[in-house]
Amino acid sequence: MKFVVVPDSFKGTLSSAEICETVKSSIEKEMPEASVTTVPIADGGEGSADAFLSISGGEKVYVKVPGPLFDETKAFYALSSDGKTAVIEMAACAGLPLVENRKKPLETTTYGVGQLINDAARKGAKRIILCLGGSATNEAGCGAACACGVDFFNKKGEKFVPVGRTLSEIERIDRSNLFSYLKGIEFITMCDVKNTMFGPGGASQVFGPQKGASKDDIALLEKGIIHLCKKVKSDLGTDISYIEGSGAAGGMGGGTVAFFGSVLKPGIDTLLDFADFDSTIKDADYIITGEGRIDGQSIRGKVISGVAARAKKQNVPVIVLAGGALDKEIERMYDLGVTGVFTINRLAEDFKKSAPKSAENLAFTVKNIIKLIKTKERI
Amino acid sequence: MKFVVVPDSFKGTLSSAEICETVKSSIEKEMPEASVTTVPIADGGEGSADAFLSISGGEKVYVKVPGPLFDETKAFYALSSDGKTAVIEMAACAGLPLVENRKKPLETTTYGVGQLINDAARKGAKRIILCLGGSATNEAGCGAACACGVDFFNKKGEKFVPVGRTLSEIERIDRSNLFSYLKGIEFITMCDVKNTMFGPGGASQVFGPQKGASKDDIALLEKGIIHLCKKVKSDLGTDISYIEGSGAAGGMGGGTVAFFGSVLKPGIDTLLDFADFDSTIKDADYIITGEGRIDGQSIRGKVISGVAARAKKQNVPVIVLAGGALDKEIERMYDLGVTGVFTINRLAEDFKKSAPKSAENLAFTVKNIIKLIKTKERI
Repeated sequence: MKFVVVPDSFKGTLSSAEICETVKSSIEKEMPEASVTTVPIADGGEGSADAFLSISGGEKVYVKVPGPLFDETKAFYALSSDGKTAVIEMAACAGLPLVENRKKPLETTTYGVGQLINDAARKGAKRIILCLGGSATNEAGCGAACACGVDFFNKKGEKFVPVGRTLSEIERIDRSNLFSYLKGIEFITMCDVKNTMFGPGGASQVFGPQKGASKDDIALLEKGIIHLCKKVKSDLGTDISYIEGSGAAGGMGGGTVAFFGSVLKPGIDTLLDFADFDSTIKDADYIITGEGRIDGQSIRGKVISGVAARAKKQNVPVIVLAGGALDKEIERMYDLGVTGVFTINRLAEDFKKSAPKSAENLAFTVKNIIKLIKTKERI
Repeated sequence: MKFVVVPDSFKGTLSSAEICETVKSSIEKEMPEASVTTVPIADGGEGSADAFLSISGGEKVYVKVPGPLFDETKAFYALSSDGKTAVIEMAACAGLPLVENRKKPLETTTYGVGQLINDAARKGAKRIILCLGGSATNEAGCGAACACGVDFFNKKGEKFVPVGRTLSEIERIDRSNLFSYLKGIEFITMCDVKNTMFGPGGASQVFGPQKGASKDDIALLEKGIIHLCKKVKSDLGTDISYIEGSGAAGGMGGGTVAFFGSVLKPGIDTLLDFADFDSTIKDADYIITGEGRIDGQSIRGKVISGVAARAKKQNVPVIVLAGGALDKEIERMYDLGVTGVFTINRLAEDFKKSAPKSAENLAFTVKNIIKLIKTKERI
């Protein structure tokens, strides 16, 4: 029997790689003759670079760049073993954990992300995959653009690096000085939200509060993003206002389209393509995936739905393992291609108590699922 | 596909009948063509009379008899629709819930149980099944024996009704006056513990404390039980000292052997025989059973192990549903015939929070198991 194990991490307890290992050994204990392929994965947010490296091999490149508040930060990106593909998590130098108690969404920048892009390009990368998610910024990637040669001018004709507060001061955008070595590069932006640049479902209103924006801040940020969209349209000829996912990472989704000619893609699809997932699951009897908590989010472009969609096409059953499963949204998962959802809580106890036992609970659950699957042999 | 559903209750949340109903409807939703046979069941303790009635049909007979402290109590027993079999839960008139804050293990009696036996016999029952468990007593069923005509004499030659405190005063036992209508009756005693009459694993030392016995009380009770065993051996010619299960219900297990010629049997086996379980599971594809909490107890003569033992003989897979599952003991269950154990906790939360959701959590778990089983059809 052939199994493909492709889980998201269980946030706060187990990494995707740890889950892969536990599931694989649990299957092999029950079914020594089974073939088990593991695909550690991430949903395009934190851990994406590692996930890519675990698939392609390669190196993690560390670079000192400006952090979200322009303070020096040691960031990293992944470079595939053939040197052709770089995977950059924007959170590596513009992420929320880096500002902690200094959340200033009006002042934060993605400038460092641009420097990571430069570094990768100079090293010879021909494809740059930008992973959005977990950002501390709300400046639509203007900082990253500046770091790559895009010029922003104010009314006085002075160049400046826009941040959230100063987006409205942009009078003119000039992309003609974009560094020449960036021009032949394929940019892909991985994002797992469908939010747009502005409006009630837009970057500032939806994600502003978690970045520390007050009501007044949000109004200012919103105004700035709208202003930027107008300038992008007039000066660069691209309308990014209504692209799904453009609002990811404080509008950086839209910014990468405007400034780098990037294409927005769900993270999981990018990763599964990269892993040649469709070939991997050929002839598989079961795919085992999972997520810490199954809810509405799991359906919108996350690991499980991405995996299930591909499994459905090849008619492979998908078993979902979860730390927790919420009610109504789950029903839709079956339509997406999920066969069954199994939660790993062996006892009725709260997360604090069960979290340290996640690995053994997971192993127990898998063991029993495999034992149940083995009853096939009887019929 | 044919399913047989035969769960113990989930104590504190769902009765066996409720579980049967939920599991049946969950299966039928996923697999409308499935045949689902339900067998509500109990392990020989509380709920046994109802379990028998749900299998055989019949009536619940209510009788006023002396309670554990000789106060009038409305008790009941089950009489099968053919009137031939009576099922008496000793806890109905000698149970711990009846004494609540008046626990007096030195003074409590099973006298009422004897009167229930008389009532059933006079109504024509030819087989009397006594269910031990949940007792407030520690007098080895002497009260019940008295109520049925067995005579106990003290040193002065006076007849008396022994209770825990006065077991040591028994000078002679005379069974010759046992009511004549009891003589042709087949007695079966259902008990689910293996404790013996006395010693470190005996009735008084193990179960005394939960009945309210102090250290001194236990010493007195232990002495009394040992004394009784000697008298039973000398006067009735039966050695009940070391029979497995004799220590159930404060030694009543042994008492029913000595005074009524009863046979001790695991409750679940008695019930499964009564339900003609071996025929019921013929050609079944799956048996679904369950228990509130899987632990060491589950292995010693309880529902799951009883069901699994029979399933194993016919090679039918057994799926166990549980509110919680403890670790090490479970491993042994697979040897007993259990295929897989699935716990129903959808979220990591404590029992207080999850208990009210037991039915929906159960339905969710069954749904996903059936969906997984349906993948059989693919292969």
